[in-house]
Amino acid sequence: MNEMLNRLGMNAKAAETEMRNLSTNKKNEVLLAVADKLVKDAQTLINANRLDVETGKRNHMPEGLIDRLLLTESRIEGMAEGLRQVAALDDPVGEVTGMKKRPNGLLIGQKRVPLGVIGIIYEARPNVTADAFALCFKTGNVVILKGGSDAIHSNEAIVNCIRETLNEQGVTEDAIQLISDTSRETAAEFMKMNQYVDVLIPRGGRGLIKAVVEQSTIPVIETGTGNCHIYVDETADLEMAADIIMNAKTQRVGVCNACESVLVHKDVKDALLPVLAKRLQEKHVEIRADEAAYALIPGAVHATEEDWGKEYLDYILSIKVVSSVEEAIAHINKYNTKHSEAIITNNYEHSQKFLDEVDAAAVYVNASTRFTDGFEFGFGAEIGISTQKLHARGPMGLLALTTTKYIIYGNGQVRP
Amino acid sequence: MNEMLNRLGMNAKAAETEMRNLSTNKKNEVLLAVADKLVKDAQTLINANRLDVETGKRNHMPEGLIDRLLLTESRIEGMAEGLRQVAALDDPVGEVTGMKKRPNGLLIGQKRVPLGVIGIIYEARPNVTADAFALCFKTGNVVILKGGSDAIHSNEAIVNCIRETLNEQGVTEDAIQLISDTSRETAAEFMKMNQYVDVLIPRGGRGLIKAVVEQSTIPVIETGTGNCHIYVDETADLEMAADIIMNAKTQRVGVCNACESVLVHKDVKDALLPVLAKRLQEKHVEIRADEAAYALIPGAVHATEEDWGKEYLDYILSIKVVSSVEEAIAHINKYNTKHSEAIITNNYEHSQKFLDEVDAAAVYVNASTRFTDGFEFGFGAEIGISTQKLHARGPMGLLALTTTKYIIYGNGQVRP
Repeated sequence: MNEMLNRLGMNAKAAETEMRNLSTNKKNEVLLAVADKLVKDAQTLINANRLDVETGKRNHMPEGLIDRLLLTESRIEGMAEGLRQVAALDDPVGEVTGMKKRPNGLLIGQKRVPLGVIGIIYEARPNVTADAFALCFKTGNVVILKGGSDAIHSNEAIVNCIRETLNEQGVTEDAIQLISDTSRETAAEFMKMNQYVDVLIPRGGRGLIKAVVEQSTIPVIETGTGNCHIYVDETADLEMAADIIMNAKTQRVGVCNACESVLVHKDVKDALLPVLAKRLQEKHVEIRADEAAYALIPGAVHATEEDWGKEYLDYILSIKVVSSVEEAIAHINKYNTKHSEAIITNNYEHSQKFLDEVDAAAVYVNASTRFTDGFEFGFGAEIGISTQKLHARGPMGLLALTTTKYIIYGNGQVRP
Repeated sequence: MNEMLNRLGMNAKAAETEMRNLSTNKKNEVLLAVADKLVKDAQTLINANRLDVETGKRNHMPEGLIDRLLLTESRIEGMAEGLRQVAALDDPVGEVTGMKKRPNGLLIGQKRVPLGVIGIIYEARPNVTADAFALCFKTGNVVILKGGSDAIHSNEAIVNCIRETLNEQGVTEDAIQLISDTSRETAAEFMKMNQYVDVLIPRGGRGLIKAVVEQSTIPVIETGTGNCHIYVDETADLEMAADIIMNAKTQRVGVCNACESVLVHKDVKDALLPVLAKRLQEKHVEIRADEAAYALIPGAVHATEEDWGKEYLDYILSIKVVSSVEEAIAHINKYNTKHSEAIITNNYEHSQKFLDEVDAAAVYVNASTRFTDGFEFGFGAEIGISTQKLHARGPMGLLALTTTKYIIYGNGQVRP
């Protein structure tokens, strides 16, 4: 292994015990101090960020990405505010649950503990740096960050600022380390550092996540894409259905819990589709329709097979007419990305069937898919939305950054 | 992808919904019917098994492995008994927890559901076939098995017997499928079938587990090896310490929760080591000792650096003298495999420190590490012992074969 990575790994391991034992009070104190320091050092951060932004512009980075990269005083204040919010959350670490006496007198329970060393691989968003640190630190984890080359100066400045504060607070600086070499080779090696890193979390687009899932030998928490559906059942309140679809499609189009596809029961297609289409088109949503829906929607285009599996992240929506709730469920389970799915219905049996049979992290009755979010679910913070089934599924708050260990109190028990 | 694997994957996916909806009563009925059928078809299974055993003998398979491979009437009765025990366990699927009303009126809870399709890769133990089926079936999962070539005829016979029973019971046969091609290439392809398989569980030796962790792109539940330590603190009851060490080392040597290394506080080394060594040597345990322990143990050999990291699975034990509980913890966290660790002490502070700081799936005070086991922990069944930190840690019962999904009841909520 690359010597630099090896050193980082050893530093992280050495910091684990101190982090595991840090009291909640101390962790909160440090988070608040880091928040203050970020605001105080805003100009330093902005200067470093300027180098990245200038490089981005020289390399013709698209406007949207430049904007995501940009640090301003108010954005730095936002980062600091995020740290303060995490400080205010309950600390899940240390809780012991299910402690029970076994027939032989052993007292066995599960204690919630930090994961240990968390690796985070992300793209050109400097705010992830402070955000990921806050969540990992609050849960007693050590974090190693690997950000994109586009934001390297910004990330270095933020990490330096955090490490200085840790040092001032008498806490190991190695609670956070940044991999300054942003090459692909180093990233590939990082993903195989099983002896040092307990879990790897990719944060970014589809390509990044796919690369990490395919290359990593370290367990990965996959945060995924969302091809989210809304199915309008024959008993739906059609005004409610249209309101929910408008919200799920247009309230924010570039997010993973936005609606990408609508399924409509054939008995309500005539009443719903012309009205719905008009509202969508007023918001400049392009409609890609199957045959039955196309006939009812002036200005629609024909959907192709490819459309059903597509996460547009754009002002585009596919619409398909189905004959039953069973057909809707089968279509969703075939094409969805296991993120968020909704049924609009007033039929009890269909609502239960949909909740039971749709395979997704979050399944809704009569509500917008846009609620799949750590803040909306009441977790107070979010490290991402898991679309895999192991460990954590759906919005992940602080709990997802912990594990448990069995603790056993005996008085001399041996196994017969 | 290999056409055969693709077909198996599609069959498995098609069976998912039926399995997800099977009632607990029906699942139990099927498990009992499979148990009866295995006993009834015992002679067919034994005939098939004879082919594997004869091939094994021709290929000079070691006696121990031949024995693990062999099916007898009483072993088949044992497999059937295992199925009946799983039928008697509580079904974790369907429980809804933490359902809470959000300020906007959304009712959000977590429902426990099957993982979906579970892949199991294992070695030449035909009993795993029935055992894995029982646990996966009880939790509503579809299972695809990939056994070793050494047991292929036995596995085929067992799977046929199960599929016939499923058919008789009116349940999809594809709840269980066996990959009949036992080549390495097929195994390698199987480990990358992310579109069909939700989780992969390797069951077998170190080499198999390592190969799966390194090659699989599907999330893996790693069941690991155990380099387990017992630390005897200066305040320990030395008779209790010796009893526990004897149990943990010699009650069964070939298992992952057996003790492989003993750490002794320097203040009790003189009182403990000669007595303990004599008892161990009476049981033919070879002792590999550091300098300080070597001086007290006639017949010991010198331990090398390599010994500290070794899982012997044999009548061998390493012994090291340490100066403090801190040194013991540091040694353990450096060399252990995160399985099971014990402290023998009468000091309150040291017991808590050990429980807090040792990084392992199960941490004991004053008891034998041999208790790390699904049955001993009261789960009634075990699919393995996880030494990783994601999803499940420690002995895994039925719960480890499930996941959750968020279910959300609304009445028209949209995101502001």
